[in-house]
Amino acid sequence: MITIPAIRSADKACGDEAQRRLDRKTKPTGSLGELERLVVRIAAARRTADLEPLRAAIVLAAGDHGYAEERVSAYPAEVTVQMLANISAGGAAVNVLARQAGAELVVVDAGAREAVRGDLIRPLRLGSGTANATQGPAMSRDQAENGIAAGIDLAAELGRSGFDLIAVGELGIGNTTAASALAAALLPAEPRLVCGRGTGIDDAGLSRKIEVVQRALGANADRAGDPLGTLAALGGFEVAVLTGVCLAAAANAQIVVLDGFVTAAAALVAARLVPAVADYMVASHRAPEPGHGLVLEAIGLQPLLDLGLRLGEGSGAALAIPIVNSALAVMAEMATFEDAGVSDR
Amino acid sequence: MITIPAIRSADKACGDEAQRRLDRKTKPTGSLGELERLVVRIAAARRTADLEPLRAAIVLAAGDHGYAEERVSAYPAEVTVQMLANISAGGAAVNVLARQAGAELVVVDAGAREAVRGDLIRPLRLGSGTANATQGPAMSRDQAENGIAAGIDLAAELGRSGFDLIAVGELGIGNTTAASALAAALLPAEPRLVCGRGTGIDDAGLSRKIEVVQRALGANADRAGDPLGTLAALGGFEVAVLTGVCLAAAANAQIVVLDGFVTAAAALVAARLVPAVADYMVASHRAPEPGHGLVLEAIGLQPLLDLGLRLGEGSGAALAIPIVNSALAVMAEMATFEDAGVSDR
Repeated sequence: MITIPAIRSADKACGDEAQRRLDRKTKPTGSLGELERLVVRIAAARRTADLEPLRAAIVLAAGDHGYAEERVSAYPAEVTVQMLANISAGGAAVNVLARQAGAELVVVDAGAREAVRGDLIRPLRLGSGTANATQGPAMSRDQAENGIAAGIDLAAELGRSGFDLIAVGELGIGNTTAASALAAALLPAEPRLVCGRGTGIDDAGLSRKIEVVQRALGANADRAGDPLGTLAALGGFEVAVLTGVCLAAAANAQIVVLDGFVTAAAALVAARLVPAVADYMVASHRAPEPGHGLVLEAIGLQPLLDLGLRLGEGSGAALAIPIVNSALAVMAEMATFEDAGVSDR
Repeated sequence: MITIPAIRSADKACGDEAQRRLDRKTKPTGSLGELERLVVRIAAARRTADLEPLRAAIVLAAGDHGYAEERVSAYPAEVTVQMLANISAGGAAVNVLARQAGAELVVVDAGAREAVRGDLIRPLRLGSGTANATQGPAMSRDQAENGIAAGIDLAAELGRSGFDLIAVGELGIGNTTAASALAAALLPAEPRLVCGRGTGIDDAGLSRKIEVVQRALGANADRAGDPLGTLAALGGFEVAVLTGVCLAAAANAQIVVLDGFVTAAAALVAARLVPAVADYMVASHRAPEPGHGLVLEAIGLQPLLDLGLRLGEGSGAALAIPIVNSALAVMAEMATFEDAGVSDR
């Protein structure tokens, strides 16, 4: 059994102090808009208004899904393993975007069909793909707990190495179906409201996906009201690991930058376990997946970007890292009206 | 008299080639959304699909405004000079954001009330603040032409130094009134539709601002239909310089990243002189100023960010630089399906 770490709500007083300091900076009050809200939220989460840019890591967790048997993806299931190899070789979007953001990339094989080796890849394999959730639970409760525990350990380790900003990403053919099922169960919401085209399925595929989610919910109806049981029943191995990252980051006052719909589903599981985790999260962007906005809203997060991104891998989270760190640099480095001898209004 | 540089439309074939190359990268087709549109537009503008991240400079042009006599700003007019000194000392938001973006900062004193000296500041002074446009033209046609010529020279010089991405910013108490007047004249639009709260004026100030724009339009009615005459009549010194930057950048196939409403007004003047300049522009963000969205729409630009920024100085443009360069890095560095041995759909 895992121990959920002790998580406090963010410290609102530190956020208020951050806003007071921002208001003395040489700029019209509030004129940095969402950057100021970021600073205030991060000050509260970090429990200090003495902020500076955070060292950033991207945790990309990968897993395969029994849902893929139901032909819910535009791509064949072997692509998960192929893309892990591609990421390991440095050729994927997230490799490029991590370099541009100056972020360390940590790839977790949480349970692809086959193990993939490589310098960047950590094997934390919970299995070789989940079971088909339309026929019973995707994984056992033990597997879900082990995944969460692995994520907790990884976030803590990153914290010890000085990474206080963890951007999360995922990879796994079929995983927007898992995210849709989790969103449908935990929000709750009708499957048709939370199913989208993922990497690009056609109309028939989308209808099939909705029906697959309905069947998965039906096959696992006894898990309702239990976030961990719901994760095991409907989720993915990578989702379990990312849920653990979200929980531990909140316990360690690290900032989690979410990516798209699948990472939001992991965040939702974490928030259903411990609502205060939301205080430590930043939503990098809103993806076209219809469930994404609903989940972010349920968690209470406003996305920074809206660029039509639907790649996953942590790509949107990587793009948001420079924005987050720019906001923190403003707090750390800008002069005040008094320092600069500038007239306030 | 200035010579407007020879500007060609972007090369659509290069944009098409860029899209074909993007479609071979290891990602679902179109899944990088606006990043892909950026790559395609920049390939067309640069006349090549062989792209890589661009060396970036921020040109921040400052000027004072006769409009300030009409109490249209929440801040006193001396703030322009004080903020120039603050920027020169490295304490303003744009200093911080330029460092975060890895961009060179070039500050142009296009005509503050008093000259400000400093290592970062280039004196290209067209005067000591414009005249009050409610009583006649803000500047002479010669001054407007000299400002454009100075901007043309600066962009060309930056190009020779390898800066092919020019983010533009501005500083000047009263300059959202100038931008509103230019937008009202050039769109054209009712003053009440293009006047906003700038750095934060109250309701009475906003009413006064609308009325000031109406009076300025009335006092300069003979300039209608002549973009250069309109710029001279209603604009600011910094707007003239930035108009020149926009024109020359397009001639040199440099990419101009716009900031807020005032830079958009300069872009609009340039686009009314030579419509093809729009092909070389990227809109970094949408500001809360109501005129900003209207001007961007008239130029045909979609903003990347919507973060409630209303600071100016090039702050939003600076935040967009890493996004633009991340898109270009994706094009330069990502593997193709063939290279990586990944199955396409």
